[in-house]
Amino acid sequence: MAVYTNIDDASLGALLQDYDLGAPLSLKGIAEGVENSNFLLVTERGPFILTLYEKRVAEADLPYFLGLMRHLAERGLPCPVAIPGRDGEALRHLMNRPAAIITFLSGVGAARPTPSHCQAVGETLARLHIAARDFPMRRANALSVDGWQHLIAACGSRANDIQPGLADAAAQEMEKLAAGWPRESEDLPRGAIHADLFPDNVFFLKDHLSGVIDFYFACHDILAYDIAICLNAWCFEKDFSFNMTKAKALIAGYELVRPLQNAEVNALPILARGAAMRFFSTRLYDWLNPAAGAFVQPKDPLDYWRRIRFHQQVSTPASYGYGV
Amino acid sequence: MAVYTNIDDASLGALLQDYDLGAPLSLKGIAEGVENSNFLLVTERGPFILTLYEKRVAEADLPYFLGLMRHLAERGLPCPVAIPGRDGEALRHLMNRPAAIITFLSGVGAARPTPSHCQAVGETLARLHIAARDFPMRRANALSVDGWQHLIAACGSRANDIQPGLADAAAQEMEKLAAGWPRESEDLPRGAIHADLFPDNVFFLKDHLSGVIDFYFACHDILAYDIAICLNAWCFEKDFSFNMTKAKALIAGYELVRPLQNAEVNALPILARGAAMRFFSTRLYDWLNPAAGAFVQPKDPLDYWRRIRFHQQVSTPASYGYGV
Repeated sequence: MAVYTNIDDASLGALLQDYDLGAPLSLKGIAEGVENSNFLLVTERGPFILTLYEKRVAEADLPYFLGLMRHLAERGLPCPVAIPGRDGEALRHLMNRPAAIITFLSGVGAARPTPSHCQAVGETLARLHIAARDFPMRRANALSVDGWQHLIAACGSRANDIQPGLADAAAQEMEKLAAGWPRESEDLPRGAIHADLFPDNVFFLKDHLSGVIDFYFACHDILAYDIAICLNAWCFEKDFSFNMTKAKALIAGYELVRPLQNAEVNALPILARGAAMRFFSTRLYDWLNPAAGAFVQPKDPLDYWRRIRFHQQVSTPASYGYGV
Repeated sequence: MAVYTNIDDASLGALLQDYDLGAPLSLKGIAEGVENSNFLLVTERGPFILTLYEKRVAEADLPYFLGLMRHLAERGLPCPVAIPGRDGEALRHLMNRPAAIITFLSGVGAARPTPSHCQAVGETLARLHIAARDFPMRRANALSVDGWQHLIAACGSRANDIQPGLADAAAQEMEKLAAGWPRESEDLPRGAIHADLFPDNVFFLKDHLSGVIDFYFACHDILAYDIAICLNAWCFEKDFSFNMTKAKALIAGYELVRPLQNAEVNALPILARGAAMRFFSTRLYDWLNPAAGAFVQPKDPLDYWRRIRFHQQVSTPASYGYGV
C-alpha cells in the first residue's frame, strides 16, 4: 500500500501527450505495491495503472521487469504490460521518476485463499516458468542467501528488541541456510521466477485466476524456489498452522503443467526454509528501519519467524504434502 | 489517504447480492478521504466507490451526509450519491462497519490551483448553498468554536513541543475567537455547508469543475464560513503567502451565483481566522495524538498557525480582495 509521490495535473497532461490514450478523466492513488507509487488512471480510452518507480527499484532493472511482463503476456499469461508511447518506448519519466502506464487487469485478490485458489496459483506459476524459458534477459536475485545474510547481520542484536533471543536464533538459522542452500552446480532447473507471488499479487474472478501483477522482484533463480515462496505465502493459516491440503493443491496444480524433477522435490524443504528467511530478513530490517513517508505499516517479521520454526521441524517433502 | 479495513471477497460478494450491479471485477483501496476506508470497485456495471465508515464518523450522522449528497445531486450539483440496494436502502454494512456504494465521478484534483479553478470553486460553493436551502435535515457543527476550544485545551502545553510558546499563543487566539465569533442571533445567513472544501475534494476536467466529494464534515452553519474555509484552503501559496488574485476570483465566482450581504462581507475576517483555527486545532491534536494504523502522515499544524498569523494582521474584508 503506497503512494509516495503526488502527481500534478500539468505533469500528467504532459505525459499523456506522449500517448494515444485521450484526455485524463480520473487519477486516484491506490493501495497496491509497496515499492512504488501506483495510481488508477482513467482516460478517454479506459482504465490504466500509472506506476512511478521509487528509489527502492533500481532504474537499470526496469527494462528486465517490463520486458518480462510483455514476454509473458504475449505467451498468454494474464499479466499486465507497459503501454508504449508514440515513440515505442514504454519506460518514461514523470515527477522526476521513471514511470510507466500499464494495462488494467480485472480481478479481486483472494483475502481467504481456498485450495482451489492454491491449485490455480500453482498452475499459473508453472505456466509462467515455461513461458519465460525463451526470455533472453537475466537479472540476478539480489535477495538470495547473501542478501538475507547481509540483512540479518545489519539488524544484529536489535532483533532482540522484537523477541528476546531472536538475534542469535536468526544468525544460527542463517548459518545453516548458507551451508545447505543449493549451489549453482546442483542440478536444479533455473529460469525467470516471479519471486513475490503473494495473494496480494494474484487476482481472481470467482475461482478463475485472472491476473498476476507486481513483477518487481522477478529474477533468475531456482524455479522450485518460486513454489517454496508460494508454500509460505499461500499455505499458512492466520494462526501460522500449515495447511497441507492447500500445499497439495498448489503443488498438484503446478505439476499439471510442469512435473517436478526428483532433485526439485528433494530440495523443497531447504527451499521453503530459505523462502521464509527471505521474507523474515526483509521484514525484520524494515521493522527496525521504517521508511520515512511510506505510509506503510511495516509487516510483523515474527509471522515469518513462526514459519521458519515450522520448516525447521520438516525433514522430507512429504511434510509439504508431496506424494502424500 | 486511508485504507483502514481490508475487505474479503466473500463479504464483498454478499454485499453485492443486495444490488443490481453485477459481479465484482476489481477492488482496489484508494488514497482518498482520511476518515474512512475507500475502494475503487469495478463491477460489470462500471466503476464505483465503496466506502467503509470508520469510527471517526458517527453512524447516526450518515443519513444526513448521504441525504445531503442526494439532495444536491438531484439539484444538479456534481456530487456523488450512494446507490440504494434492492430494498431501497443506501446505507448497508460490510466488515462490521456501515458501508455505501457511491457513484464514481470523473475528474482530477488541481494540484496547483489557478485563479480560474478558484472562481469555479466559488461558483460551485454558492450553487451548493442555494441547492441546500430546502434540505430538511440538520446537523450541528461539531467542529465550531466549542470544538476548537476543547481540542486546544486537550493539547495544552504539549503544543510547545512543536514550537516554543505555541501553547500560550494558541490559547490567547482561541480566547479572542470565542469572544468575537458571530452569535446565533446575528444576522448571518446559515444553512448546510460543505465545511471541508479543500483541493483534494474537488475534481476538474481541464478547467471545468466536474466533482465535489467528501461531505463527511457537512453541517448547518454560517454560509460565509464555508467561503472562509475555501480562502484558507485555496488561496495560500506553498510559502504561506496569501494570493489575493485567487481570493478575488473565489469570491467573485461565489457572488456570480449568490451575492454576499453586507453582514457577511464584514464577517469575513473573523470567519477566515476561525476557519484557520478549525484546521489548526484538529491538526495540532492529530499531530500530538497520531491514530494507530491509519497509515496517514499527520499534517503539519504549523501550516495553519502561519495562516492564523496572517489573519491576525487583517482588519477589513479588503485584505481578502473584497471590493478591491
